[in-house]
Amino acid sequence: MHFAEPLPLRSGAQLRDYTLVYETHGALNADRSNAVLVCHALNASHHVAGMQAGPDGTPLKGSEGWWDNLIGPGKPLDTNRFFVIGVNNPGSCFGSTGPMHPSPQTGQPYGADFPVVTVEDWVDAQARLMDRLGITTLAAVLGGSLGGMQALCWSMRFPDRLRHCIAVATAPNLSAQNIAFNEVARRAITTDPDFHGGHFYRHGTLPRRGLRVARMIGHITYLSDDAMEAKFGRELKNGALNFSTLDVEFEIESYLRYQGDKFSEYFDANTYLLITRALDYFDPAAEHGGSLAAALAAARCKFQLISFTTDWRFSPARSREIVKALVDNKLDVSYAEIDAPHGHDAFLLDDARYHGVLRACFDNIAREVAHVG
Amino acid sequence: MHFAEPLPLRSGAQLRDYTLVYETHGALNADRSNAVLVCHALNASHHVAGMQAGPDGTPLKGSEGWWDNLIGPGKPLDTNRFFVIGVNNPGSCFGSTGPMHPSPQTGQPYGADFPVVTVEDWVDAQARLMDRLGITTLAAVLGGSLGGMQALCWSMRFPDRLRHCIAVATAPNLSAQNIAFNEVARRAITTDPDFHGGHFYRHGTLPRRGLRVARMIGHITYLSDDAMEAKFGRELKNGALNFSTLDVEFEIESYLRYQGDKFSEYFDANTYLLITRALDYFDPAAEHGGSLAAALAAARCKFQLISFTTDWRFSPARSREIVKALVDNKLDVSYAEIDAPHGHDAFLLDDARYHGVLRACFDNIAREVAHVG
Repeated sequence: MHFAEPLPLRSGAQLRDYTLVYETHGALNADRSNAVLVCHALNASHHVAGMQAGPDGTPLKGSEGWWDNLIGPGKPLDTNRFFVIGVNNPGSCFGSTGPMHPSPQTGQPYGADFPVVTVEDWVDAQARLMDRLGITTLAAVLGGSLGGMQALCWSMRFPDRLRHCIAVATAPNLSAQNIAFNEVARRAITTDPDFHGGHFYRHGTLPRRGLRVARMIGHITYLSDDAMEAKFGRELKNGALNFSTLDVEFEIESYLRYQGDKFSEYFDANTYLLITRALDYFDPAAEHGGSLAAALAAARCKFQLISFTTDWRFSPARSREIVKALVDNKLDVSYAEIDAPHGHDAFLLDDARYHGVLRACFDNIAREVAHVG
Repeated sequence: MHFAEPLPLRSGAQLRDYTLVYETHGALNADRSNAVLVCHALNASHHVAGMQAGPDGTPLKGSEGWWDNLIGPGKPLDTNRFFVIGVNNPGSCFGSTGPMHPSPQTGQPYGADFPVVTVEDWVDAQARLMDRLGITTLAAVLGGSLGGMQALCWSMRFPDRLRHCIAVATAPNLSAQNIAFNEVARRAITTDPDFHGGHFYRHGTLPRRGLRVARMIGHITYLSDDAMEAKFGRELKNGALNFSTLDVEFEIESYLRYQGDKFSEYFDANTYLLITRALDYFDPAAEHGGSLAAALAAARCKFQLISFTTDWRFSPARSREIVKALVDNKLDVSYAEIDAPHGHDAFLLDDARYHGVLRACFDNIAREVAHVG
């Protein structure tokens, strides 16, 4: 969807003449009351469910949407009942206007000149897309991690445009440690000589070394200590030590290198910087004297919060801060703390108790939708 | 101290013709029973206490030894009573033979060809130094973190040559997550174009970018989440957001960049690789069918273990594994779990309860020494 009207940004800059790529599943009902918006996190996209077609039109192996275990016919977010919309945020690298696209000012790729975008800006862009789709009120906004921040932001920024906010494995802002990990990843990228101050496109290079290291760091924080121990432990790659500082010795090294290599082949370095900054900047309490309760006072929808016991990136304590602020506002909130071993990544997995909570939540929403209809 | 006889290494290689730099405090008593060996961790050295002299002979500001708050006259490890020895391990970059020194084979700096050294190799080198100093039995071997691994290794490798093993904030081996952090740091260094496969000396370059990122990663793991939050939180560097992906926004970013810059000015990249590998490789249980108790069955000395509640790098659970293995062997072990907020770094700080435990421990050892004398 192309938007000719500029998008004013929180930074004071604006995004001119942008395109949002989106994907829908299921059918919008007659009174347009069954739409669910799914917000993506760092390295995901509008492609939330189903398969993409290959050149010959048949489903492409491995092309499942990033939340395909949750979204589809008969799944917890049942596309037989809901009209599900996935949208790629501006600044990302999966189709919507981003740093690799030409700037309308110069005709050259934006690169480092792409304006800094925030969670609030993304939500504004998403709201405009809903306008175009003729959806005044969303049945729910759903997201995990950074996607959960967008769902929360919706509840404060457009309180009358959603009936449910479902925020999974998220936080009301990043901790110093969260910012620290983001900053190290950014430094790995920006100090890669192939980064060229963010204008690597015109140099015909890619800062792959930096992206690899950034992804490796990220990956460690997505997994719990226990999950990593259970999956890799001290398992050796070749059965015996080689006594080398340069070669892979342990399985965990091999796994991380593979993850880093794969990521560096498809992810844009400027997008990595933009999205980690959006994470850093999100802090709704800051504009309300540090009070999250004051920030959430504007909200009107019902809330479902979910966290995972072994998530040390966005720990249950961070979700409980949100729950407390909602309760302080006498808002309708349900909170599930799922005992799952997988760390932050758990929000992408199909743990039975986790999906059970979401299925019950969407069953309730479906009944409301039927009632509204 | 120069050693002409080669040091056989665990890898099968050997270190020819090496020098160990060491520092002593206090006086060796007549029956040579009051010697305490202090083992260093990743980025420390033989310089454990006191000040170094500047060009004019006066104490150099900021030159305190890395454990100066613990070691000195009247301090918990009292140099009026003990003869304290700090030794720089081979492969390090603070004076003992390391990768920046010429290889006797080629006359060129070792660089990446410096042999891989392990905790066991370091302990062997330390034992030879004790031979030269005429010290048959140490009153104690003391170390924190990687230094604690050396202290543990002493108890197994030379059970009759120490009366006490004091291991602080350490672990019986690295977890998958520990190895993962080491590996990311190593990749940041080895993929820096200025690394030149470890032979950067001959290219007149230094892989500073990689070292900076490595140090930033390390630093995050040395601090507890809470300590970082208390010290930095979301404090902004310039009072307001600049909306920049490249500039510093938060105090924590500024702090980490400063730590990285400082480190990259004085630390050797090959040493970083060698020492993190020594950490990865340490695993005494591995040679005993995975049984730490079997590995420690050889030990004869008394043990003091100390851990810190907020240390998530080497958590209390890891120290408790060691305590259990010692108890299984009916060895004399005392264990203190200190409720300190500072994370892994706590072992270098002068928390009153922590130093109280060490003071009591060394008071007891001093009484034994007097008795022996």
